[in-house]
Amino acid sequence: MNYKKIDRFLSGIMILEAVFMIPALLICLYDNDVHVALCFLAAIAIAVLFTGILRLLGKRPQKGFHSREGLVCVSSSWILMSLVGCLPFYFSRQIPSFVDALFEIVSGFTTTGASILPDVEALSRGLLYWRSFSHWLGGMGVLVLLMVFLPKSDHNTGSTIHLLRAESPGPTVGKLVPRMKQTALVLYGIYVSLTVLNFLFLLAGGMPLFDSVCTALGTAGTGGFGIKSDSMAGYSPYLQNVTTVFMMLFGVNFSCYYLLLTRHFLNVWKDEELRAYIGVFLASTALITWNILHLYSGVQESLRHAAFQVATVMTTTGFATTDFDLWPSFSKGLLLCLMFVGASAGSTGGGLKFQRLLLLLKNLRRHVHQTLYPNKVQIVRMNGQRVNEKVLNDTNLYLIGYALIVVFSFILISIDNFSITTNFSAVVACFNNIGPGFDVVGPTGNFAGYSAFSKLVLIFDMLAGRLEILPMLGLISFSTWKRK
Amino acid sequence: MNYKKIDRFLSGIMILEAVFMIPALLICLYDNDVHVALCFLAAIAIAVLFTGILRLLGKRPQKGFHSREGLVCVSSSWILMSLVGCLPFYFSRQIPSFVDALFEIVSGFTTTGASILPDVEALSRGLLYWRSFSHWLGGMGVLVLLMVFLPKSDHNTGSTIHLLRAESPGPTVGKLVPRMKQTALVLYGIYVSLTVLNFLFLLAGGMPLFDSVCTALGTAGTGGFGIKSDSMAGYSPYLQNVTTVFMMLFGVNFSCYYLLLTRHFLNVWKDEELRAYIGVFLASTALITWNILHLYSGVQESLRHAAFQVATVMTTTGFATTDFDLWPSFSKGLLLCLMFVGASAGSTGGGLKFQRLLLLLKNLRRHVHQTLYPNKVQIVRMNGQRVNEKVLNDTNLYLIGYALIVVFSFILISIDNFSITTNFSAVVACFNNIGPGFDVVGPTGNFAGYSAFSKLVLIFDMLAGRLEILPMLGLISFSTWKRK
Repeated sequence: MNYKKIDRFLSGIMILEAVFMIPALLICLYDNDVHVALCFLAAIAIAVLFTGILRLLGKRPQKGFHSREGLVCVSSSWILMSLVGCLPFYFSRQIPSFVDALFEIVSGFTTTGASILPDVEALSRGLLYWRSFSHWLGGMGVLVLLMVFLPKSDHNTGSTIHLLRAESPGPTVGKLVPRMKQTALVLYGIYVSLTVLNFLFLLAGGMPLFDSVCTALGTAGTGGFGIKSDSMAGYSPYLQNVTTVFMMLFGVNFSCYYLLLTRHFLNVWKDEELRAYIGVFLASTALITWNILHLYSGVQESLRHAAFQVATVMTTTGFATTDFDLWPSFSKGLLLCLMFVGASAGSTGGGLKFQRLLLLLKNLRRHVHQTLYPNKVQIVRMNGQRVNEKVLNDTNLYLIGYALIVVFSFILISIDNFSITTNFSAVVACFNNIGPGFDVVGPTGNFAGYSAFSKLVLIFDMLAGRLEILPMLGLISFSTWKRK
Repeated sequence: MNYKKIDRFLSGIMILEAVFMIPALLICLYDNDVHVALCFLAAIAIAVLFTGILRLLGKRPQKGFHSREGLVCVSSSWILMSLVGCLPFYFSRQIPSFVDALFEIVSGFTTTGASILPDVEALSRGLLYWRSFSHWLGGMGVLVLLMVFLPKSDHNTGSTIHLLRAESPGPTVGKLVPRMKQTALVLYGIYVSLTVLNFLFLLAGGMPLFDSVCTALGTAGTGGFGIKSDSMAGYSPYLQNVTTVFMMLFGVNFSCYYLLLTRHFLNVWKDEELRAYIGVFLASTALITWNILHLYSGVQESLRHAAFQVATVMTTTGFATTDFDLWPSFSKGLLLCLMFVGASAGSTGGGLKFQRLLLLLKNLRRHVHQTLYPNKVQIVRMNGQRVNEKVLNDTNLYLIGYALIVVFSFILISIDNFSITTNFSAVVACFNNIGPGFDVVGPTGNFAGYSAFSKLVLIFDMLAGRLEILPMLGLISFSTWKRK
């Protein structure tokens, strides 16, 4: 195991986190909230301390940085980042339990948006900002961001592709441009631009400055932490619709935007994942609009709520404009299934991803055909290109890991004796990084009732969901730590 | 498509079904229940009529009987058998709706045991017997039985292996002896012997003759239709424990019994699937006994109920000695997960099967190891033997088909507006051929409340579960019916 290199990446993450806490600190100072400002200062000091310790831990350098190092680096970065990131909540006593504070920040970084807070409005504005910002940072990936700042020498070892592979969502990693640093820059360039655009649209609709910042950050990361107790219900229809549109935009594979920028319009138009993503959104919105029509004043209102909730679930954001737990079973069932699917690969959204779903469906169709005509050779294509059998196999195995984690987590948190619907949707909502589930953990509820043990299980699920299983399974696998 | 051959098999099925209705007819005559006896007679006449028509439909014979013909033959046999088998219920007006009657008999043949009857004790004894017998016939497979009676010429075309493959549960088909007819005979020999043994044990415990017959048939097929409204709750602890033991025995891979008969004790002792099956049974029983201890008079009663319910769910039988819907969430959650797993491959039980679960787990473990050490070649072993990559891939694809059918069925039946728990457990209980689920379809409830549309969806699920997906997907796939 190349510890030296891993330590180097971890210390980089700590510096980044310390820097990113400064705006929250400034907000506290502006609000004259000295107590919380000191808490942020303490957290920054600890992050800097970790940086120093990690740099000093100069183990004998080993050659190479492989898949194994990539997995360990990503999972340990995220855990360390969460352990430090939760400190402002814990120090300020606004979330008195450490596990609760950890749950909240993991929920933030993994863009889940599940909260243990019964009253979010009681939080200081600095903490509210930090909560929403954690979505933004986690959405595109903090190691991807680190690559932008790393010197050239770090890119030459081939380490970056292993990091990107382990942190980025989707069955295949799209290298947009030949050099990793450039790819990271392009991704963050698009990300920042869209976030700013979203912020401006919200501001133009009369949303207060602070709300606009937090909402834009939460939307961009497809996170879902609201700063109001009623999430987005209190905002105007215009603001809700803007959020619907931007949630959907952030759920698109970012390589589509890159293709648009480089004027490859036809490739975007023909992208199968994009078509499926938009198709499912339109179909589900139409079905739910029809199913909930009797609950609202008319088609317009029903359509607005349906589109918002479908977008929030599909992109795994987790905002809400209405309590969808009160909707008819068909709408609830459809939303539950959409929770599994999630957004597009290469977006900030979570879940299984449309690309995987398409690969699974195509693979199954081939399996049926091959059973019918065993002598006919058939290949699976995606966007006209032949899909590598390894990618298909990895996708199948992803589904297995996915199913097993859901099942085991469900059994473990059942000990707390909530209803089956609560437990199942809690696991699904955390693992797919959505946020609200149904019943006790529905849009108007929260996760406070679960025991510390269950919260730890759900923390694992959120991380496993965001990092797409393998880094977390790798971390707990014996063979990772085996010496050769 | 070799229609001539398919017609030949279908007509064989019709004769078998007509013959098997005779005992039910005799029971009606013994009870002086002339009306129902006439209904059985009419159904027998229709079965004979179908036999004649199928024989006359002498299409131009085509060469070969391949995988495609095997799938179509199995799925159409089961559908035709159900369409005729439900007629006595329908003609007698004891189940006035045709869809309900069809649901009931499909539930019987697929060994599900889900019922639409609010009061099962109101049924005539002839119909009760036919319901329970349908479990027994469906448990081991009717085409397997047909092979015992087919002349040698039918076995020479290689058709039988395709039939066995399509009808038998499990990722691999165990040819016990080189010739198919012998295999079928051995399987039915073990099956009949165990059924008779079960019957004698029940009779010895003071259960009435008719009850013993029906209970033994339902246990053997791991079906679960009770002949009492309270299922097995009213019987003595001895009878309940006997049923627990026999349910578990019928959930074992039948090739284990063959190995025992041929004195290969070590192979049985080392069988990984058997060990997992027994291990999970013991662990789950222990956990649930502890979890429900406060609900019963003591460890003994708690253990009896826990063991029975774990066995009934694992073997996908579906009897009940108590309303487990009232148990704490942990027990319910554990049972729900066991519903997915099911029994052993090559048994009469349904579900995913332990063999598949082991293959999935081993494959996932290899995937993690291979990601960590990409240059190391690793193979998956089962019982010391290398597992073919095709079997692993087919198992993965099975899980995909499984997940997709569960999700789509769940959405479709959600239209009826029952709770998420009801709908989800209804699909899971039907697809895995268990019977009772939770909430409205719990042990004390039934499936009568669902619309005809939802019942048809669940009928498809029961058939897809029993025939292990591919025959049903093959039947509805366009390419099956495509001319070359």
